[in-house]
Amino acid sequence: MILTKFKAKYLWERMEMPTLAHQIKSKPTMKSNRYCIILAGGIGTRLWPSSRQGMPKQFLDILGTGETLLQATYRRYATFIDPDNILVITNEKYSDMTREQLPQLPIENLLLEPIRRNTVPSVTWAAIQTRQINSDALMLISPADQLITNEHALEDDIKKGFNYIERHNCLLTLGIMPTRPETAYGYIQMADSKVDNIFKVKSFTEKPEETFARMFIESKEFLWNTGIFMWSAQAFLDAIKQSSNEFLDVMREVEVMLKEGHHHPQLIADAFSICPNIPLETGVLEKVDNVDVMLCHFGWTDLGTWNKLYEVMEKEDNQNVVIGDRALFYDSNNCIVKLPKGKIAVLQGLQGYAVIDAGNILMVCKKDDQNIIRKIVNDIQMSQGEEYL
Amino acid sequence: MILTKFKAKYLWERMEMPTLAHQIKSKPTMKSNRYCIILAGGIGTRLWPSSRQGMPKQFLDILGTGETLLQATYRRYATFIDPDNILVITNEKYSDMTREQLPQLPIENLLLEPIRRNTVPSVTWAAIQTRQINSDALMLISPADQLITNEHALEDDIKKGFNYIERHNCLLTLGIMPTRPETAYGYIQMADSKVDNIFKVKSFTEKPEETFARMFIESKEFLWNTGIFMWSAQAFLDAIKQSSNEFLDVMREVEVMLKEGHHHPQLIADAFSICPNIPLETGVLEKVDNVDVMLCHFGWTDLGTWNKLYEVMEKEDNQNVVIGDRALFYDSNNCIVKLPKGKIAVLQGLQGYAVIDAGNILMVCKKDDQNIIRKIVNDIQMSQGEEYL
Repeated sequence: MILTKFKAKYLWERMEMPTLAHQIKSKPTMKSNRYCIILAGGIGTRLWPSSRQGMPKQFLDILGTGETLLQATYRRYATFIDPDNILVITNEKYSDMTREQLPQLPIENLLLEPIRRNTVPSVTWAAIQTRQINSDALMLISPADQLITNEHALEDDIKKGFNYIERHNCLLTLGIMPTRPETAYGYIQMADSKVDNIFKVKSFTEKPEETFARMFIESKEFLWNTGIFMWSAQAFLDAIKQSSNEFLDVMREVEVMLKEGHHHPQLIADAFSICPNIPLETGVLEKVDNVDVMLCHFGWTDLGTWNKLYEVMEKEDNQNVVIGDRALFYDSNNCIVKLPKGKIAVLQGLQGYAVIDAGNILMVCKKDDQNIIRKIVNDIQMSQGEEYL
Repeated sequence: MILTKFKAKYLWERMEMPTLAHQIKSKPTMKSNRYCIILAGGIGTRLWPSSRQGMPKQFLDILGTGETLLQATYRRYATFIDPDNILVITNEKYSDMTREQLPQLPIENLLLEPIRRNTVPSVTWAAIQTRQINSDALMLISPADQLITNEHALEDDIKKGFNYIERHNCLLTLGIMPTRPETAYGYIQMADSKVDNIFKVKSFTEKPEETFARMFIESKEFLWNTGIFMWSAQAFLDAIKQSSNEFLDVMREVEVMLKEGHHHPQLIADAFSICPNIPLETGVLEKVDNVDVMLCHFGWTDLGTWNKLYEVMEKEDNQNVVIGDRALFYDSNNCIVKLPKGKIAVLQGLQGYAVIDAGNILMVCKKDDQNIIRKIVNDIQMSQGEEYL
């Protein structure tokens, strides 16, 4: 009996892996319109010194779970989106790292940004690319560096979103009901309800002052902006027409080249350098009127800062968090400690600190100070300390 | 002219080194009675985690000066005491480390303690050994882990001390005029003045409460106990007769074996294990009445704690001390930071902390808390964390 069971499992595992790719390639008629674009080009400054320009947070197993944030993001979407339809867009200097961490990613699904220029040119390029493959392409745009809990709820929400954008020519943002007046997040103000849990968007607000954040919560009109978006490639390319003509002209050339099957690295470089360095919200979403928001139900945290990381991690006694082997605390609480393998920390008299031992940097800072890390990184930049960034 | 000068210097250097050793060996009549015994067997727990059981502070360049504390101590005395007359006594597990750091130390001048048993058996053994070589031996006993500044004053004081013990059958302690009510030091109470700056000793007090330390300072009767002592081997061996008979019996056997030129490791091991684990002050000096103290004028600091180390080091802005490459301070002052080569620290909101990054330990503790390190080390011991001690 034991042998039979084992054999069955073995056969199942052997068959499972080739099946997914095989199915898609041998049955083109089954090909899904649903695409996922993972944005993995950020540098994650606020998680310095663990996140470095040479290896930003999305390439780190920052939660100590055994997979990097990028791998977790890919795995999460690959359970319900055809892996052949998952694209990753990142800076060209992270090309090797991405291919190493995602060996299953088809090489043509990796788009490499020539320079860092926020999200507008990246998503435009991805939209052109997917529409080229499939004129009915529906896109899910997702950052690579978030913590999502309740992945079943995520799947339900995303499927509902795909169904919605299939039938409505709109740009759909994904919102989460706020639980506290968080000043590190963006907010989306809801207007009229359109269908169940989907609303027209009234405004976007990025990182409000605490007074405003409190008002947002009380008004019950605001959701946290997850930075996850859904739309058809066509709807996005229609919306992007509000952008600068220069940028659009170059992007149209990119599209022509793509149709003819040519490489186009110089055009991409031109497009990126011309495009203003602004996020999708201000660059596109605030300029058009067909933007909706769906109230979602998955667990979501932006892992942007040490404070946020602290919040999602399991607490030891005295509300301390240790990522690494071990720490001894004396009269210390509400701290987050991250250590290299084999090292232990001994801390006394620290309340609410981030103690991060990462490579050639040791940092001991107040974890709730949202500005200190940008200040530090800026100071190090000013003193030509590139090896520490 | 330049060539001649260079040549002269070269010849001088070439001749200098062999001369010292040669002079002593070929002219036994010139042999000095003055001996120096460097005590280098401590484990320096209070400077953990830099000072470890496997490599205690005396073997570290803890000040970042380019020489270890042991090397500095040896060099300091070798300028005015015949190097052939300098003995080092340390635990047998530090034998290789001592020989590596002091390659010039004659092998027969290295005495190896079989177990840690404070200073009484070590100094007794050294006294027997030196009296065996020279029946008129005068001994200077010095710890290996102190910071001495004004080395000329030290030389003057030590020479004055040697002259005094040559003419007086006494145990001479070396005291320093206290400048603050230090609770981490030992104190020596002076009685009647005997000669210029030398006094009879009335009492010893180890690490007093602050109230007492203040009274000591106000009374002007107390000096800091440097832990440096001077006596003839004979005077010490007379004083030690107040000790337990068992210990003395074994030590007499050691002496007999020595006279016969035999090895005696088992006898030494017996003597150490029998001897009570107490310092010279309580084990010997408090039991006899021929103890004097000399008010000395060299600069002296016991480098026992991070706080003491902090006090002697040069301060950056905001009274911070960095031992290592570099640290960036934000709203931080009165801290001491020690880092491995190539690493930088970034600290925010720390007042009066010791931030020590040493091997497999990162420690962030209040530098003025005199008890925390013993507590930490004890806790680690209790949890079988030998690799961290």
